[in-house]
Amino acid sequence: MPEFDLIIRNGTVITASDRFVADIGVRDGRIAQISRGMEGADEVIDATGLLVMPGGIDSHVHFAQPTSDGTVMADDFETGTRSAAAGGNTTVLPFALQEKGKSLRECVKAYHAKAEGNCFIDVSFHMIISDPTPQVLGQELPALVKDGYTSFKVFMTYDDLMLTDRELLEVFDVARREGALVMVHAEGHDAIKHMAARLEREGKTAPYYHGIAHSQIAEREATHRAISHAQLCEIPIMIVHVSGEDPMEQIQWARRRGLNVLAETCPQYIQLTMDDLKGLNMDFEGAKYVCSPPPRDSASQEAIWRGIKDGTFDVFSSDHAPFRYQGRNNTGKDNPNARTSFRWVPNGIPGVETRLPILFSEGVSKGRITAERFVALTATNPARIYGLYPKKGSIAIGADADIVLWDPEMEKTITQGALHHGSDYTPYEGLEVKGWPVRTICRGRTVVRDNKIVGAKGGGEYCTRARSEMV
Amino acid sequence: MPEFDLIIRNGTVITASDRFVADIGVRDGRIAQISRGMEGADEVIDATGLLVMPGGIDSHVHFAQPTSDGTVMADDFETGTRSAAAGGNTTVLPFALQEKGKSLRECVKAYHAKAEGNCFIDVSFHMIISDPTPQVLGQELPALVKDGYTSFKVFMTYDDLMLTDRELLEVFDVARREGALVMVHAEGHDAIKHMAARLEREGKTAPYYHGIAHSQIAEREATHRAISHAQLCEIPIMIVHVSGEDPMEQIQWARRRGLNVLAETCPQYIQLTMDDLKGLNMDFEGAKYVCSPPPRDSASQEAIWRGIKDGTFDVFSSDHAPFRYQGRNNTGKDNPNARTSFRWVPNGIPGVETRLPILFSEGVSKGRITAERFVALTATNPARIYGLYPKKGSIAIGADADIVLWDPEMEKTITQGALHHGSDYTPYEGLEVKGWPVRTICRGRTVVRDNKIVGAKGGGEYCTRARSEMV
Amino acid sequence: MPEFDLIIRNGTVITASDRFVADIGVRDGRIAQISRGMEGADEVIDATGLLVMPGGIDSHVHFAQPTSDGTVMADDFETGTRSAAAGGNTTVLPFALQEKGKSLRECVKAYHAKAEGNCFIDVSFHMIISDPTPQVLGQELPALVKDGYTSFKVFMTYDDLMLTDRELLEVFDVARREGALVMVHAEGHDAIKHMAARLEREGKTAPYYHGIAHSQIAEREATHRAISHAQLCEIPIMIVHVSGEDPMEQIQWARRRGLNVLAETCPQYIQLTMDDLKGLNMDFEGAKYVCSPPPRDSASQEAIWRGIKDGTFDVFSSDHAPFRYQGRNNTGKDNPNARTSFRWVPNGIPGVETRLPILFSEGVSKGRITAERFVALTATNPARIYGLYPKKGSIAIGADADIVLWDPEMEKTITQGALHHGSDYTPYEGLEVKGWPVRTICRGRTVVRDNKIVGAKGGGEYCTRARSEMV
Amino acid sequence: MPEFDLIIRNGTVITASDRFVADIGVRDGRIAQISRGMEGADEVIDATGLLVMPGGIDSHVHFAQPTSDGTVMADDFETGTRSAAAGGNTTVLPFALQEKGKSLRECVKAYHAKAEGNCFIDVSFHMIISDPTPQVLGQELPALVKDGYTSFKVFMTYDDLMLTDRELLEVFDVARREGALVMVHAEGHDAIKHMAARLEREGKTAPYYHGIAHSQIAEREATHRAISHAQLCEIPIMIVHVSGEDPMEQIQWARRRGLNVLAETCPQYIQLTMDDLKGLNMDFEGAKYVCSPPPRDSASQEAIWRGIKDGTFDVFSSDHAPFRYQGRNNTGKDNPNARTSFRWVPNGIPGVETRLPILFSEGVSKGRITAERFVALTATNPARIYGLYPKKGSIAIGADADIVLWDPEMEKTITQGALHHGSDYTPYEGLEVKGWPVRTICRGRTVVRDNKIVGAKGGGEYCTRARSEMV
Repeated sequence: MPEFDLIIRNGTVITASDRFVADIGVRDGRIAQISRGMEGADEVIDATGLLVMPGGIDSHVHFAQPTSDGTVMADDFETGTRSAAAGGNTTVLPFALQEKGKSLRECVKAYHAKAEGNCFIDVSFHMIISDPTPQVLGQELPALVKDGYTSFKVFMTYDDLMLTDRELLEVFDVARREGALVMVHAEGHDAIKHMAARLEREGKTAPYYHGIAHSQIAEREATHRAISHAQLCEIPIMIVHVSGEDPMEQIQWARRRGLNVLAETCPQYIQLTMDDLKGLNMDFEGAKYVCSPPPRDSASQEAIWRGIKDGTFDVFSSDHAPFRYQGRNNTGKDNPNARTSFRWVPNGIPGVETRLPILFSEGVSKGRITAERFVALTATNPARIYGLYPKKGSIAIGADADIVLWDPEMEKTITQGALHHGSDYTPYEGLEVKGWPVRTICRGRTVVRDNKIVGAKGGGEYCTRARSEMV
Repeated sequence: MPEFDLIIRNGTVITASDRFVADIGVRDGRIAQISRGMEGADEVIDATGLLVMPGGIDSHVHFAQPTSDGTVMADDFETGTRSAAAGGNTTVLPFALQEKGKSLRECVKAYHAKAEGNCFIDVSFHMIISDPTPQVLGQELPALVKDGYTSFKVFMTYDDLMLTDRELLEVFDVARREGALVMVHAEGHDAIKHMAARLEREGKTAPYYHGIAHSQIAEREATHRAISHAQLCEIPIMIVHVSGEDPMEQIQWARRRGLNVLAETCPQYIQLTMDDLKGLNMDFEGAKYVCSPPPRDSASQEAIWRGIKDGTFDVFSSDHAPFRYQGRNNTGKDNPNARTSFRWVPNGIPGVETRLPILFSEGVSKGRITAERFVALTATNPARIYGLYPKKGSIAIGADADIVLWDPEMEKTITQGALHHGSDYTPYEGLEVKGWPVRTICRGRTVVRDNKIVGAKGGGEYCTRARSEMV
Repeated sequence: MPEFDLIIRNGTVITASDRFVADIGVRDGRIAQISRGMEGADEVIDATGLLVMPGGIDSHVHFAQPTSDGTVMADDFETGTRSAAAGGNTTVLPFALQEKGKSLRECVKAYHAKAEGNCFIDVSFHMIISDPTPQVLGQELPALVKDGYTSFKVFMTYDDLMLTDRELLEVFDVARREGALVMVHAEGHDAIKHMAARLEREGKTAPYYHGIAHSQIAEREATHRAISHAQLCEIPIMIVHVSGEDPMEQIQWARRRGLNVLAETCPQYIQLTMDDLKGLNMDFEGAKYVCSPPPRDSASQEAIWRGIKDGTFDVFSSDHAPFRYQGRNNTGKDNPNARTSFRWVPNGIPGVETRLPILFSEGVSKGRITAERFVALTATNPARIYGLYPKKGSIAIGADADIVLWDPEMEKTITQGALHHGSDYTPYEGLEVKGWPVRTICRGRTVVRDNKIVGAKGGGEYCTRARSEMV
Repeated sequence: MPEFDLIIRNGTVITASDRFVADIGVRDGRIAQISRGMEGADEVIDATGLLVMPGGIDSHVHFAQPTSDGTVMADDFETGTRSAAAGGNTTVLPFALQEKGKSLRECVKAYHAKAEGNCFIDVSFHMIISDPTPQVLGQELPALVKDGYTSFKVFMTYDDLMLTDRELLEVFDVARREGALVMVHAEGHDAIKHMAARLEREGKTAPYYHGIAHSQIAEREATHRAISHAQLCEIPIMIVHVSGEDPMEQIQWARRRGLNVLAETCPQYIQLTMDDLKGLNMDFEGAKYVCSPPPRDSASQEAIWRGIKDGTFDVFSSDHAPFRYQGRNNTGKDNPNARTSFRWVPNGIPGVETRLPILFSEGVSKGRITAERFVALTATNPARIYGLYPKKGSIAIGADADIVLWDPEMEKTITQGALHHGSDYTPYEGLEVKGWPVRTICRGRTVVRDNKIVGAKGGGEYCTRARSEMV
C-alpha cells in the first residue's frame, strides 16, 4: 500500500506567512507530509511552476436564501458550491436565515436539509438573526452557538431583516455571553429610505439611483453606530462588505482607540463603480450591478486597496448574492416591480467564482499585494476568524488537504459562458485576468480540474465550527 | 430735555472682539452714543472699574415646561426670568414644547400665554418638535418659521420627546427648505435604555447610575448620527450641551470635512463630575446633579475647556431645567418613583443664574479665556446664531441697551440662599467665584442692582427673530 | 471750534465682531465718538452705502531690504507705504533685517533712517535675526524687545538668512525669557537645496522648477520642526505664509494637542498656482510668480480657504517682497544669473496694494467669509498679535482713527497701470474684483481718495509696540 | 545511513501564520521534512509540550563597535553571539560602523575580521554610514550593496555619527538607486544638545537628565523629518527603536498617507521607564538604564503594546549596546567623565539575551499577542525585511534549520548571574518571566541546551543578504 493517497509535487507552497518549494503528501484527506522528492502515492500531481495554496474560504455567500418578495436566488447549494469550487474555493460559509416569526433552530435545520447531499465542497453556516424574540435570545441562540454555529449576522437595513438598535444591543449581549462573533451589515436604514423616497418623488427610479439612496454617509453612520454598540457591549465585531473610505475611516479610528473591529471587503469595491450602475445611458442594464452597499467611485477603489494592503481588511469575500437578470419569476429586467423603481431591484450580485481570480490578478499579478497576503485574506484569516482553523485555512500538517493549484501566468477573460453559477450574467464580463486556479482539491479529492467539474455532488461536507479566535 | 435717558460712564466696554474705555449713552432703550466725557442724562451710572458687556443671552433654558410624568418644573417665566436677570442675563430663549398629539401652533400660543406679562427680561422661543405629523411638517412648521420661530430642537432620546431617524431626516428637510436652524439633543436612546435595563437588573438604581446609563459612547454615537443626517440633508446643525471629548471629537472631525456643525456646552461640564452624582456614599443626594448628558470626569472637563478656548464651542448656555429636591409633588427625594430608580429622577438642574459667574470666574478670572471670548460665547454668538442680532448681543449703535455691568474683582460664594430661582438647591453650592454682575440693564432699564430685583414683572418683551446667520 | 475734526457719516461700521450703521467722530487723530446724526466738524465724509472698517494692517511686508546678491528691492518706504495706502492699509510692519556679521541694533537704526520722513502711513518694524551671536542673544535682542521691537522673524532656509536648529532653539529661549513673539519662515533648507541640485543636474532650470524644489513636503517638515522646537522651548509661534494643506495639517494637529501655534496665509495661496510659474510654455515669464513657499494647486487653494474660514489662519498678510521684472540691475528677465537657473530668481512678489481687494472680493463678495472675519484677519488680529492693539486695529473709542472706507459694490480690474508700487508688474494682472477701498484715512487724515494719493510723504509715523497678547 | 541528521519530534510548530503539531526532519543543516511519526535520524529530540519556532533573528545589535571616547563595548562577537544564542537567537545583525574619515569598505572588512571564527550563531552586517563622502556615495556604497550589504543605518544625532539633512538626503538617493534599505536613528540632535546644555547649566547632571534631554519631542520631530526626507526621495525607511506614542503617531500618519514606513521597537520600551533612570534617589545607578531614545512612562508602554499588537511595529529587536558598569576603562560608575554629566554616560544597554524571553512572557504568556505574532516580530519579519528570507526566518522546507525550542510553561527570574553577555549587569534584574528557550539549534546543530552553551565558537557563519522585500 502506498504511503500517500496523493502527492502534489514540486509546487511553490504559499501560506499566509511563507513561501517555499515542496511536495505535499496527503493521506486520508489530510496533509500528512511536506518535504521534497516525495514518492509512493496513488495519485501524483506535478505542480511545477504552480502555486500550492490553501483552498479559498469564501466566508460570505448567500445560497438558496428565501426572499420576502418571492424572488428566487439564482444559486442553490448545488450550483453555488460548484461555482465556488470552479473559482478555487474549498469551503464556503453561507447564511442560514431566520425569517421573521420563525424559530431560529428550525431555520438552521431547514438549511441543513437544503445543503445535505448537494455540495461539491465543504460548507458551514453563519446564522442571520432577524427576529430576536426572548425565545431566540434566551434559548435558541445560546444553544446553537454551543452547537458550533459560532457566528451570526445582523442587518441594520432591509425591512424584512433589520434589527432596531435595541435589538442589536440585546443580540450583542448574547454574543458576549456565548462567545459568538457578530457580523454587521452596516447601512443606516432610515437614511436610505428617506433618500429613496426623495429620489422617487423626483422621478429618479433607474437602477443607478440605488447607488445614490445607499449613500456612503449612511454606510459610515451605521458603521460608527455598530462600533459604538459593540463598544458598549464589549464585543468584537466584523463589519462586512465595506465599500469605501468613509466607513474605513471609522474602523481605523476605532482601532486606534483599542477597539476590536474586524473588517471585510469584496471584489465589487475594487472592480466596479457607480458608473456601472448607469448601464447604457441610465437604462435597466444597471440592475446587474445593484448590491448593498453599492460600488462607489475610483477614489474609493484606491482607498479599499490601501486597506487591503495595510491590514484594515482582514477578509476578502464575495458577498455572493446571485439573481438572474432575465425571466419574470426571477429578478431583473422582466420583473415588473423592479422596473418601476430601483427599490424593487433585488440587492446582490454573483461573485463566488470570480472572487479569487480578481484578487489574484489585480492584487498579486499587478504587484499590489503578495501571494502570502492573498492567502491570508482569502483563506487563513477567514478560517481563524470563523473557527475553522486549524482544520481549514492553511497548508499544515494535520489540516484538511484543501488545496488550490494556481497558475500565476495563465491569462483568461472572464465571461458568463465559462462560469458555473446559476446567474445568467456576470458583472465582470470581459475582465482580463492573469493567474487562474487550475485545480481545486477538497480533502484530497480533486473537485475541479482545468475548469471542468470532476468532483461529485455530495462530496462536500458540513463543518462544525469552534469559537472564533478573535472573541 | 436731556439728550440721553441713561449714561453709563467710564466703564471698560467689552465686545466679542474689542475692549475700550468709554461712556455709553442710551436713548429710547437703545444704545445711541459711545464716546467719552458724556453728559446730559436723566440717569448716570458710574461704571469706573467695571466691565460694560452685552447682557447675557441664555439660549438654552426650560421654563414651565410640561412633563409627561406630572413633575412640575421649579421655574415659570416669572421666577425664571427673575433668576436669569440676577445672573446678568437680558434675554433668554426657552423652549415651546410640542407635546405629542398636539398642534405645534397651539403649543406656541400656550407658551406665549405663560410668558405674557410675567417676564423681567426679554424672551424668545425655540420650538421643540416631538410629533412631526404631515400637518406639522407641511404646514405648521413652515408657517411658524416664517413667523419668526426660526429655530427648533429635536431629541434623540426621552420616550415622550424623541424622534426616529426617519423623523429626524424629515424634519431636517423642512429646516433646509425653510431656513430654520435645528438644535439636537444627541444621545442614543436605545443605548441608554439598554444600559439602564441592565443596571436595574443588577440592582443598580441610585442616581449615580444615571451617569452610567447615559454613557459618553451613547452621546458620541448620536452626535455622529445627527451630523450624518445633517450632512445628508445639507443643513447646519447645533449640537447642544456637549459633555466631553468623545462628542467633541466628532464635531471637530465633521468641521475638518467642511460640514457646518455648531456646538454648545454648559457650566455643568466644566464644574461638575460623575462623582457629584454619588451624593454622600451613593445616596439620593446625587439626584441633585442628574442631567443629560451627565457631567463626566476631570479629563472631560479639560477637554471642554480646550473646546471653549479653541472655538470648538460657539455657545455657552445653561440648559437650565430646574426641579425641586423636596416635596412629594415635586421631583426629588420625596418622589417615590424617583427613589425606586434613577430612571425616574427628572433630568435637569438649575443654572440660569450661575452660568455667567461660573464662566467668568473659571474662565476670565483664571486666565483661561479673555473677556472678549466670554462675550462672544454668552451673548454675541447666541444672538447671531439664533437671529437676534443686531438687536441683541452687542454694544453697538442702534442695538438694544441690554447691558450687564460686571465687577471683575468682586468675590462671592454661590449659595442657594442668595439665588432667585424656583429650585430649592443649587448644584454649585459653596463655589467661590471672582467677578460678579452688579447691574443688569434691559433696554435701558435697570432690572437688577446689587443682587436686588428692581425691575418690574412684565418689563420683559417677546422678541421675534430673524433667520440664523449660520443657515 | 467744531467738536470734531472729522465726521464719517452714515457708513456701516464693521469690527471683527460687529456691524452697525453709525457716524464716527474723530478728534486729534483718534476716534472720539460713535453715534448717529452727528454734526459739527471741519470735514464731513458721507459714507452712505460704504463699509467703515479699521484700516488694513499688513503685518508682513518687505521694503528696502538689502539682498546678498545685490538685487534691489522695487519698493522703499516711500513707494511701499504709498502702495499700501492705496490698497486700504493704514499700518504696515516691514522687517528690519539683521545682516550676518552686523549688529542687530545698528540694523534697526539703519531701518529707522530709511523710514524716517518717507512714510505715507504708519509703520512698525519686526526684526529678522540672521546672526544670533552671544552679543545679540544676550544683550541686543533683550534690549530691543524691551524697547518695543516685540516680534522677530527667523528663517529656516536661504543661505544668507537661515538659522540652524540649534540657533533657532537659542533664539526661542530668548523669546520666552523676553516675551517676544517669533515668526517662522518654515521651509526645510536641505530638502530644497537637494531637490534644486537634482533638478539642475537634469537641466530643469526654468522658473517653474522653483516650485518643485520648494516642495510642500519641505514646508510641512519645517513646520513640524518649528512647532516641535517651540514646544520644547514653551513659546507660541507664528507660522507665516502657509501655502497648503500639508503644513496646515501640522498646525491643526499641534493645536489639538494644546500648543499655541499662530498661522498666516497670503493672497498668492488663494489666487495663484504652480501653473502660473510655467509662464508661457515654461518660459521666463514664470519668474513673475516666484515666491517662497510657492503657490501650489487648486486643492491647496481650497484647503487654504477652509483654513481662512475655520480659524486655522489668524492673519492674512501680503508677504510683499517686490522686485522688478525688467532691467539688468534689477531682478527678472534681464538678470543673467536668474536666467541660468530658478535658483537665482529673487524670491518674492509684490502684493501690499492688492491684498485687501483680493480677500474682500474673493472672500466677502463671493460669500466665503463675512466682512467681520475680513476685519479680524486683516486688521484686528494683526494688531493684537503684534502688540499694536488697542491703538490700532479697531473702530473703538480712543483708537487711532485709522479707517478705510470700502465700496462693496465697486467693480475693478487689477492692472499694473493703476497700482502705486515700485514693481513693473503685478502677478494679479487682469483679475476682476468686486469691492474697493475708496478712501484710506490714517489718524484722521485722508491719505488716499478714489485711488489718488492725497496724503503727504512723511505723514506716517513709527509705532512702538507692546508685547503680543498671545505671548 | 539514516534519512535525517536530526528529528525534532512532536512539538507544536509555530510560524508567523500557523500552528500545528508535527515532527521536523533536518538534513544537511536544512529543514527537509515536516510530518508526523518521523523516524530514522542520528539525533532525535523529543519536543512534546514545547513550541518549535524559527530561531530568533535580532536585527539590531552592536558588538565590538569602536567609540569615539574610547569606551569599550562589553561584547565582542564571541560573547555577543554566545549571549544571543542563550537567549534563543540563531542569527544576529550587528553593525559595521564606518568611522568618520575612513573607507566604508575597509570598515566592513575590519568587521569581518572581528567576526571570523568567533561566532556561535550566524551573523550578517548592516552598515552605519557616518561619512558620506563622494567616494562613499558614488562607489563604495553602491558596490557594497551589490555585494549583499543591503541595509544601512544613519544617525540623526551623536556628534561622531550624525548626518546633516543634506547628507541624509544624498544617502537616501543612493538607497533608492541601489535598492538598499535605510534604517534611521531618529532623534533631533540640536534639540537634545540644547536641552542638555540647559540642564547642565542648571546643575542637573545625574543620569536621569539624559531622559529629559532626549525628549520625546526631539524623537518625534526627527521621525517626522526622516519620513519627510524619505518621501521626497521616494524610498521606504525603517524607524528603529521607537520609544512611545509621539513617534508612533507620526509613523501611523505616514502610513495612512500611503508612505512605506517600517518600524521597530525594543524591550526597554515595554519594560523600563524614566523612573529606572532615577536609580536610587537620583544617583548614578540610573546610568545602567541610559539608552537612546530613553524609556518613557507607563502611558508610552501601553502605546508601544498597542503598536506591537496592531501592526505599527514590524520588528521587535534588542538594540543591544552593552557596556560595563564597573571599571575605569569601561563605562559606568568608575568613569570620571560620566560622573560629571549624563552627557558622558555611554548610550546603550545589554539585551540580546533577554529580548525573546521578555516579549514571550509579557506578550504571549500574558495573552497580549499570539505566538504566531511573536514569531513574525522576532524572526520572520526581520528575515524578510533584511533579505535573509527564505534561508532564515521560518520553519519551511529548504530553510536553514534555525530552530528554538520553547517551553511555554517554564518560569524563570532574570538575573545577571545566569546571563552570558559581557556586561556586568542587566537592566532587567529580578524580572520574573514565564516561557523560556530550552534549546537553540543553528543549521541543525544544537548551540545551547538548558542554558548551557554546547555549540562551538566559530560554528556561526556570515550570511550574505539579498535585497529587502520591502524595497
